Amino acid sequence: MQKVNAYAAFDAGKELKEFQYELPSIGNEEVDIKVHYCGLCHSDMSMINNEWGMSQYPLIPGHEIVGEVLALGSEVKGLKVGDKVGMGWYSASCMHCNQCMDGKQHLCGTVESTIVGRHGGFADKVRGHWSWVTPLPNGLDMAKAGPLFCGGITVFNPIVLSGVQPTDKVGVIGVGGLGHMAIKFLKAWGCEVTAFSSNPNKKEAILKMGAHQVVDSTNPETLESIAGSLNFILNTTNVSLDWNSFLTTLAPQGKLHTVGAVLEPMEIPAFSMIMGEKSVGGSPLGSVALTRKMLEFCVRHDIYPTVEEFKMENVNEALEHLEAGKARFRVVLKA
Amino acid sequence: MQKVNAYAAFDAGKELKEFQYELPSIGNEEVDIKVHYCGLCHSDMSMINNEWGMSQYPLIPGHEIVGEVLALGSEVKGLKVGDKVGMGWYSASCMHCNQCMDGKQHLCGTVESTIVGRHGGFADKVRGHWSWVTPLPNGLDMAKAGPLFCGGITVFNPIVLSGVQPTDKVGVIGVGGLGHMAIKFLKAWGCEVTAFSSNPNKKEAILKMGAHQVVDSTNPETLESIAGSLNFILNTTNVSLDWNSFLTTLAPQGKLHTVGAVLEPMEIPAFSMIMGEKSVGGSPLGSVALTRKMLEFCVRHDIYPTVEEFKMENVNEALEHLEAGKARFRVVLKA
Repeated sequence: MQKVNAYAAFDAGKELKEFQYELPSIGNEEVDIKVHYCGLCHSDMSMINNEWGMSQYPLIPGHEIVGEVLALGSEVKGLKVGDKVGMGWYSASCMHCNQCMDGKQHLCGTVESTIVGRHGGFADKVRGHWSWVTPLPNGLDMAKAGPLFCGGITVFNPIVLSGVQPTDKVGVIGVGGLGHMAIKFLKAWGCEVTAFSSNPNKKEAILKMGAHQVVDSTNPETLESIAGSLNFILNTTNVSLDWNSFLTTLAPQGKLHTVGAVLEPMEIPAFSMIMGEKSVGGSPLGSVALTRKMLEFCVRHDIYPTVEEFKMENVNEALEHLEAGKARFRVVLKA
Repeated sequence: MQKVNAYAAFDAGKELKEFQYELPSIGNEEVDIKVHYCGLCHSDMSMINNEWGMSQYPLIPGHEIVGEVLALGSEVKGLKVGDKVGMGWYSASCMHCNQCMDGKQHLCGTVESTIVGRHGGFADKVRGHWSWVTPLPNGLDMAKAGPLFCGGITVFNPIVLSGVQPTDKVGVIGVGGLGHMAIKFLKAWGCEVTAFSSNPNKKEAILKMGAHQVVDSTNPETLESIAGSLNFILNTTNVSLDWNSFLTTLAPQGKLHTVGAVLEPMEIPAFSMIMGEKSVGGSPLGSVALTRKMLEFCVRHDIYPTVEEFKMENVNEALEHLEAGKARFRVVLKA
């Protein structure tokens, strides 16, 4: 039995408190990770607050984990004790359905989420299936790598999925934890990057991270001025926007892609898609193989989230910081 | 000067009457076609009734034209007098914008529509730019080929655009002039084809044209029974449907594509797209090159619309037949 020292919410919206639990003996395909760092994601807050109605308490958040392999079962492949690894929103999938066999483990019908019905990474240890415990490539900075495993792959996947080319002009709606990583990826991808932000205070930082221009997304006239120019727009916000205005900024065959789970249905005029062969799509995180490729891409281009580090024991302070909209741009907890 | 004998509407919603006009001397890049057959499309009715607010009277409908080259300008390429040809919804594009240069002439910002601001094919002659006057491949049946140039390419283009594979399971919403051609194409493409129809009287005919099953699109339970199974759904109707129900029938990475210009915005829940990497798109007709490929595909697989032939002088009778929803499945006028 392994004792785990963690931070847990004991009821919806409550502050986290120290919590200990015991891991049962390790399964043949399981890996235990010693947590070094864990990013703090909006989804952690949503789960703490039971916004999606699927939280179980005590709830240990944390799903942007980096650390090292502490123990592993007899059938684990490709890992050994001491390996530097990361694990994100997903921690297991069935490995045999059509999606898993096709390399799309993130679309597995029974994919397991690290903090849904099980314990996450705001702890000194966390457990997962070997397939989702990803070795870190040489040279990756562990202190900043955590958010790549949730926010990072979430915005990296649509770039690949949508076939974005270096010759493309692209837009990113919302420059927070996800959006700022998207801008860095797309800059390294070779694209001309437009950031849509309604916060003028972020402008300088946004340009510095690689955007070629910042457009005030709340101003319809500004959107009109770039009509028909963008090949790809990534929405990272979860607020209801005037989607048709953004469709208007797309060039023929342009794609509007959302990773923000807007609650109200998106209102999409058919005619706006038909005339320019435009489309609207969405995606969750990304596959195991793409996560590995993303990490290599990050090392090659020195791409990291812009992080603010808190000690894990100050997790409640970090949560307040995030909730107040003060994070610039992603919070990481150091174990 | 060439005298043209045509049928025209003289006001919105009015019956067509005989009308003569004169063509000015032919431009260097223009082609005059002697009309043999012309399909009758819902868009002709929409234009006669000025539903889109862009009709000019006298209005000569007709944009599913087959015939032969009667005359051509000095700079026309790839055609000679007497060639059997077809021309559809588009009759000219600028030839030099990025879309035109990229082989996407149908997405040209100044693409010319055959019956918008100019005279169409319910006539003994019609004129177009050489680029959109497409030679018919050997063996194509002229009496049935007309509808391929509008309805045909409209449903063929999304199959190519969406990367539909012969191993895919696909659905077609609505089995009218467009939908029935989509079913024939997708059957020949090698797919498992589900037709969504609310008309039980059409079932036998739909199965005969190649659908593997017919599903009552108005029954939510039936839709649930095929949840998660389809890779591609083509909507050919222009009525507002419960789009989320259809998204539910899509497999991971499935695509819902509309060629029906539904007037109300489509309500698309972001979450329904995100979880399965699904997308929603639309398109108008197709490019010149794809139109040529489609015609060759039709000859190879003996694919034609199921047509009912009327004499062109009985055009008003044909219009009534279509308006009453009696067309099985496409009306063609013989000049």
